[in-house]
Amino acid sequence: MAAEDGLRVGLIGYSFMGQAHSQAWRNVASFFDVPLQPEMAVLCGRSEDKARRAAEQLGWREVETDYRRLIERDDVDLIDVCTPGASHAEIAIAALEAGKHVLCEKPLANTVDEAEAMAAAAEKAAASGVRAMVGFNYRRVPAIAHARRLIADGRLGDVRHVRAVYLQDFLVDPDVPLMWRLDKEQAGSGALGDIGAHIIDLVQHLLDDQIGQVSALLETFVTERPIQGDGSGLSGSAAADEGTGEVTVDDASLFLARLASGAVGTFEATRMATGRKNALRFEVNGSDGSLAFDLERLNELAFYDARQDGPEQGFRRILVTEAQHPWVEAWWPPGHVLGWEHTFVHEVRDLLHALAAGEQPTPSFGDGLGVQRVLGAVEASAADGRWHDVAP
Amino acid sequence: MAAEDGLRVGLIGYSFMGQAHSQAWRNVASFFDVPLQPEMAVLCGRSEDKARRAAEQLGWREVETDYRRLIERDDVDLIDVCTPGASHAEIAIAALEAGKHVLCEKPLANTVDEAEAMAAAAEKAAASGVRAMVGFNYRRVPAIAHARRLIADGRLGDVRHVRAVYLQDFLVDPDVPLMWRLDKEQAGSGALGDIGAHIIDLVQHLLDDQIGQVSALLETFVTERPIQGDGSGLSGSAAADEGTGEVTVDDASLFLARLASGAVGTFEATRMATGRKNALRFEVNGSDGSLAFDLERLNELAFYDARQDGPEQGFRRILVTEAQHPWVEAWWPPGHVLGWEHTFVHEVRDLLHALAAGEQPTPSFGDGLGVQRVLGAVEASAADGRWHDVAP
Amino acid sequence: MAAEDGLRVGLIGYSFMGQAHSQAWRNVASFFDVPLQPEMAVLCGRSEDKARRAAEQLGWREVETDYRRLIERDDVDLIDVCTPGASHAEIAIAALEAGKHVLCEKPLANTVDEAEAMAAAAEKAAASGVRAMVGFNYRRVPAIAHARRLIADGRLGDVRHVRAVYLQDFLVDPDVPLMWRLDKEQAGSGALGDIGAHIIDLVQHLLDDQIGQVSALLETFVTERPIQGDGSGLSGSAAADEGTGEVTVDDASLFLARLASGAVGTFEATRMATGRKNALRFEVNGSDGSLAFDLERLNELAFYDARQDGPEQGFRRILVTEAQHPWVEAWWPPGHVLGWEHTFVHEVRDLLHALAAGEQPTPSFGDGLGVQRVLGAVEASAADGRWHDVAP
Amino acid sequence: MAAEDGLRVGLIGYSFMGQAHSQAWRNVASFFDVPLQPEMAVLCGRSEDKARRAAEQLGWREVETDYRRLIERDDVDLIDVCTPGASHAEIAIAALEAGKHVLCEKPLANTVDEAEAMAAAAEKAAASGVRAMVGFNYRRVPAIAHARRLIADGRLGDVRHVRAVYLQDFLVDPDVPLMWRLDKEQAGSGALGDIGAHIIDLVQHLLDDQIGQVSALLETFVTERPIQGDGSGLSGSAAADEGTGEVTVDDASLFLARLASGAVGTFEATRMATGRKNALRFEVNGSDGSLAFDLERLNELAFYDARQDGPEQGFRRILVTEAQHPWVEAWWPPGHVLGWEHTFVHEVRDLLHALAAGEQPTPSFGDGLGVQRVLGAVEASAADGRWHDVAP
Repeated sequence: MAAEDGLRVGLIGYSFMGQAHSQAWRNVASFFDVPLQPEMAVLCGRSEDKARRAAEQLGWREVETDYRRLIERDDVDLIDVCTPGASHAEIAIAALEAGKHVLCEKPLANTVDEAEAMAAAAEKAAASGVRAMVGFNYRRVPAIAHARRLIADGRLGDVRHVRAVYLQDFLVDPDVPLMWRLDKEQAGSGALGDIGAHIIDLVQHLLDDQIGQVSALLETFVTERPIQGDGSGLSGSAAADEGTGEVTVDDASLFLARLASGAVGTFEATRMATGRKNALRFEVNGSDGSLAFDLERLNELAFYDARQDGPEQGFRRILVTEAQHPWVEAWWPPGHVLGWEHTFVHEVRDLLHALAAGEQPTPSFGDGLGVQRVLGAVEASAADGRWHDVAP
Repeated sequence: MAAEDGLRVGLIGYSFMGQAHSQAWRNVASFFDVPLQPEMAVLCGRSEDKARRAAEQLGWREVETDYRRLIERDDVDLIDVCTPGASHAEIAIAALEAGKHVLCEKPLANTVDEAEAMAAAAEKAAASGVRAMVGFNYRRVPAIAHARRLIADGRLGDVRHVRAVYLQDFLVDPDVPLMWRLDKEQAGSGALGDIGAHIIDLVQHLLDDQIGQVSALLETFVTERPIQGDGSGLSGSAAADEGTGEVTVDDASLFLARLASGAVGTFEATRMATGRKNALRFEVNGSDGSLAFDLERLNELAFYDARQDGPEQGFRRILVTEAQHPWVEAWWPPGHVLGWEHTFVHEVRDLLHALAAGEQPTPSFGDGLGVQRVLGAVEASAADGRWHDVAP
Repeated sequence: MAAEDGLRVGLIGYSFMGQAHSQAWRNVASFFDVPLQPEMAVLCGRSEDKARRAAEQLGWREVETDYRRLIERDDVDLIDVCTPGASHAEIAIAALEAGKHVLCEKPLANTVDEAEAMAAAAEKAAASGVRAMVGFNYRRVPAIAHARRLIADGRLGDVRHVRAVYLQDFLVDPDVPLMWRLDKEQAGSGALGDIGAHIIDLVQHLLDDQIGQVSALLETFVTERPIQGDGSGLSGSAAADEGTGEVTVDDASLFLARLASGAVGTFEATRMATGRKNALRFEVNGSDGSLAFDLERLNELAFYDARQDGPEQGFRRILVTEAQHPWVEAWWPPGHVLGWEHTFVHEVRDLLHALAAGEQPTPSFGDGLGVQRVLGAVEASAADGRWHDVAP
Repeated sequence: MAAEDGLRVGLIGYSFMGQAHSQAWRNVASFFDVPLQPEMAVLCGRSEDKARRAAEQLGWREVETDYRRLIERDDVDLIDVCTPGASHAEIAIAALEAGKHVLCEKPLANTVDEAEAMAAAAEKAAASGVRAMVGFNYRRVPAIAHARRLIADGRLGDVRHVRAVYLQDFLVDPDVPLMWRLDKEQAGSGALGDIGAHIIDLVQHLLDDQIGQVSALLETFVTERPIQGDGSGLSGSAAADEGTGEVTVDDASLFLARLASGAVGTFEATRMATGRKNALRFEVNGSDGSLAFDLERLNELAFYDARQDGPEQGFRRILVTEAQHPWVEAWWPPGHVLGWEHTFVHEVRDLLHALAAGEQPTPSFGDGLGVQRVLGAVEASAADGRWHDVAP
């Protein structure tokens, strides 16, 4: 049983995101003063063997093989959902109904309908102090949080332009096999939901604004890929080479947007940008300044302050590693750069504070629904070639 | 009378572009072996006083104040048109009909109709050896020409993505007065035709491809600006402060595109990107490599070669200042960087070679018409919110 | 008692380095397959209260307040020395003599004499399978290890030039108080030993070469600083403001070097380089290529391969986050950048492997002595203004 | 005869520097309002044929083949000396004695003795209004002049560190033949005088400071090179392959320096830095700010202002292309970058103004002598391995 000031976590999933979340739970209390001590209680995965090995490696005390049993346990306070998008709604809603707090990986769901049901469940649960959060971890890159502060402080003036891309290249090779991320049933969409969702959330968060209308295109460059019979493929069955299967999601999604504030923007998410490994980039131009960021250099923020004297203006490379920058004081001296995974440490740190204070952690499922509605509008626009409004 | 191997040039206009072209004519033969010696014969401008002062400063022998008289002179072989877009068609067609070669600044015209008439006139003139060229000078940045070679050599494989922006910020300040560039009558369009035309031409040229469909938006952020009574303003008349007038063109234009090859792209041209002074940037991603360029660092090209061994791959910053790079041998040793204006030197160098060889210089008026059709489709799409085909 | 495959660690010190090492011991087995499971057994610090709080936060099971008692414990297998340099020799030698493995922070010692005694003790201990390692953690930045591979593979040809700087700015403000790092008694030297030692070790390691002769200067720009009465100051005593005290070490150290191979180099370490937070930078030029690195962008390595075709040559920005890069496979997908602290994870990972295999971990105390001899020659040269040989 | 407001120029030499100066004389009056109109009167070279062809190409009216005859002409007002260093003293002194103004390429001379004689001749000539200037053209890179302003305005506070390198790689290939630049008789020294002189002058100019003591090393990595029989080789004679000859100058020169102000610095000049084409780089760290520059990106200056608020500090990339930046107003709109050769346009522009005003142009021969004394001290230190004072 957890002490009053503990939080017993049950994590579902132990691949990429499960590992990233595990390190967050394992380290958060060593760097931050947290009001609740997280306990890495239970790891849940379908294969008991694999789950047990993962639990040992990642630091979880026990394992479960059925998420329903995990949710039933009364020695677990929070369910951390790191499964593919197709199961988010089912698991998160069940957990909330069982009175467990939920941290759910992004995108919130595979469809707007699912996301609406989840947001409704979250709202209902909140009435009894049960909280839900969606894991748009990039909100907690210090440079991005610092960018948001500068915008909120009016340092850019009126924002007019935003350019946001999320460029990866892991699908350039046509021999990369089918995987769940390429199957519409499991993933909902392709680059759009996987990485496009990040830049949609980020822009709305950074600017405290909403995407209002979109005109979009989706494209799949490699439409058939080899099927491989291991667990990372589409089915759990079978032998090494099983022919090819259809890619049912987008390789790339591009859209123009008008925001509620009047700003305009371009957005692009692709896994076919050869040479770009994890290039989540944005630039924001306002009447009084601009900001630029690249996740491949995540400790840096470029800031142009048009209020400075003319001959001194320039994009400033701020190394966002000073104690005054968000979350940084807990870490190392200036210039000792942080890695990608600490976005998750910051995420659970803030979640622990919100839970202890009885407050709504952000981003909420409502925020996640907002992103999902943009994804929906993008898909609708790509389908009929017209501008679509994003449902408010 | 020009010697057999001379080319007597008459230039119309002596502001920004007129100065840039003048330095090109003045210097080309000192750096390049040219088959025709350009003579800076006549400068033409409406104000005789100003034209005379400009001619003296820029190195022109005589002046004219009426372009019609200039065209009539039989001691002029080529008309170099550096006026605002509204007069391009009239001047260029008259010059071609008078048997003068024409170099015309970009964009070719203010409307597709004008551009079609110009292209027709050019084609007709060509039959008798009279040549027309449109001044998309950025084709002759060495780094861009080198990029085109790499693409033509198949180094990128199948091109899938292009991102092209041309970002400036000289209209961010709402006190910048109305000028001809902000008047639809004179300029045709705003950022779209002024700088968007450059990236449209460049992408089509780089990829040897055509933009097929577009979905666009145009936006004017500052809709009223002060009228100023000097020559740089809208009227030639009047006193320092004359109230405000309407901006009738776009501050920014954004569009999605599908290219004939199947590649997809985003394009953006704006004069409201605070802190970006002359950021013509593009990135091209192909199945086997990528290229990136920024005009603010015009001596550099970034190239990613996906055929290299995995652990060695990276975007290479090629300093495009080696003797083997296009046009560079004529200049300085490696690392002695070139400036923006030498794109015009290269332009007239190639024009002189084409004229001497009796060949069609590029880009032709037909190429300029191709760009104009994209501009037209962008305007049409922005007006009705639908995808538009670019007329072939 | 540790299981056969466990390693029970006792850590001395819990400030900056102690925290960095703690996270390494806490995380190494979650990311790497290690042949020995580290146990975070005992944390040792002079103040029991502070040590206990630190142990709880950082994940250590027990505490000790006297390093001698720690060394006597037979339930500890390895002593991790994270104290200031003045105590390294005493602790490390005692530990080795007590049959404990030792990991000692850099620089190895405050004087060549101490370092010689330590290296001798390590050599003696090694005879009975007890191992000693010095913590030059930057050898285990993936980009640096990759650089070393390229050099070892002959990709640079004959190395001719090295430029190495380690630039910080935390002493620019003259109001920064005296601290142990500014006291020759405790720290041995200033920027020289603290950060200069890193670049000396790195260059010798990267090039597999030895610095042979040096000509040096040392400079202290701020010679008096305020004394502050807290534990971070020079004395453990007293009130907030106690006047000023003398800085007895260098703020900056610069030297020219000739290496055994014939290469020449410049080295500079300073804490007065305003704006440079943690800029450990080097560039190496060989007859066939060059490398450049900056710790502020520690996931990147710039490589120039002069064997490529002329017009394609350029410094390549290799994002050292691919599975084939050293240590990277254990972490995240490409482009998901690592932070500074993981150099320590790699360090203890390799230490665990060496211990399990009964091999000498590197860098050895002998390597640390080699660095110390360069530090000694630098100090001697700065004192008499002549070139000094580094004792072999 | 020149009009009152003209300046008739005689240029000696028409290779690299002669071409660079020619374009400056040819263009200066088209961009700048100059009080004296330069006339490109006479080009002087030993081979009449070559000189005549060069004159035609570069825009010079007449030719001479003997510099003595050039100096005797009374229709020449200024002698522009673009010959190798060995002849500078003889020509410049003769010209000054003949009452001609002199612009002399850097380094001023091959020895301190020669430089002293030249400075004395210049001082004597100045009494009768005859002026001498040495061509350290990099003082007139706009970014460098802007850097100097910032330093002069106290924006860096007390300067403590300077790091200056000039890195090229054109001698990396051992098959590059002997040329006059590799012959001590003709060139005086190697990288030291050729490019090291630039960074010495720049640092003294930027900081308004003097190098006081130096400790240096010189190194020649490739000691024998093929002799080639064309004019670019060591002798004017002979056939294509004539065996090898000795390189009698340094490939690389490195030195530590103490400046009069108390600042310390490292300096390095080399032609063996593979991949660096023209990397004149400096960084200056002061108590209140820092500056960094790289000639390969000559339109940019990085400025760190430590007086800004902590979380906003960062190196600012100032694009030095604004009208308020030195010399820039004469050129193009912001962001339209300038090339290397315009440093010479600025140089002659300022020379024309000084001559018209009857003032001493800078850098003077006295400034050139100051640099020469540093070169001399570097050579002396490299010879005996001790610190040397620079004669005041």
